[in-house]
Amino acid sequence: MTKGLSIIGAVLGLAIAAGAATGQDAQQKALSDATKARQAQMQLYAFNLGQLGAMAKGEVAYDSTAATAAASNLASLARLDQSKLWPEGSDDMSVEGSRALPAIWENLPDVMSKSSDLATAASAMEAAAGTDLASLQAAMGAVGGACGACHKAYRTPSN
Amino acid sequence: MTKGLSIIGAVLGLAIAAGAATGQDAQQKALSDATKARQAQMQLYAFNLGQLGAMAKGEVAYDSTAATAAASNLASLARLDQSKLWPEGSDDMSVEGSRALPAIWENLPDVMSKSSDLATAASAMEAAAGTDLASLQAAMGAVGGACGACHKAYRTPSN
Repeated sequence: MTKGLSIIGAVLGLAIAAGAATGQDAQQKALSDATKARQAQMQLYAFNLGQLGAMAKGEVAYDSTAATAAASNLASLARLDQSKLWPEGSDDMSVEGSRALPAIWENLPDVMSKSSDLATAASAMEAAAGTDLASLQAAMGAVGGACGACHKAYRTPSN
Repeated sequence: MTKGLSIIGAVLGLAIAAGAATGQDAQQKALSDATKARQAQMQLYAFNLGQLGAMAKGEVAYDSTAATAAASNLASLARLDQSKLWPEGSDDMSVEGSRALPAIWENLPDVMSKSSDLATAASAMEAAAGTDLASLQAAMGAVGGACGACHKAYRTPSN
């Protein structure tokens, strides 16, 4: 009976260990997926901001319709619900390719405040971009500042 | 004088060639950036749709708030202006990593129609997802169908 129990225990133990490993793999995949999804969002920010920046710098001729489209995209992206994009354990020490500093999860109110600053700046850009080049240029500072404030505090430097 | 002109011509020729190369590099980078940006958008679609799908299949417990957040994200993403994301010349024969078939640019009205179908299905999902699990499940078919219709017609199979 003791032997029977220990065999059952060993089988269960193996099964639990296998289950735990699968669970860990699934958990790691979920963390990696969230990391990639937030990086995708950053890439879309950058793509739309790049178009606005090219106009602001005079590299591309100002186009009211294109400026409004890019600014509306940026504002819509900044308003997305990001609650699933930043799971604890997806920092740069834990997930390959992540540049998110662990400090994020120790300073969530500040992170949320910086995120809100970006949404506010992007909404102001959305309102300004289609007016004229000077209005677009005037709105760039707050957007760039909001990006930079969060990156400076919470992102590892690029290699 | 003839020699002088031909030297100038050679210098100008080199300069023009160099300029053209730089212009081509810039053009290729723009095509690659647009390709990566639309792939980022697809990734965000997939991330949010994955959460809805997990609930629909019963892998994750139905959560009205989380379902609404994911569905609203999906609908917002589907409403983004994509006019800069699909430049001609960014097909799978022209840009590394692109899976977009050249047929896209030969059938733009159909592509726009399929894109509109996704936006409609995502808006219906946004309205349904928070009601209850059955409503979420009922809205999945049209969303999945819209994704699949475009991928089947206009995307190369995965390797």
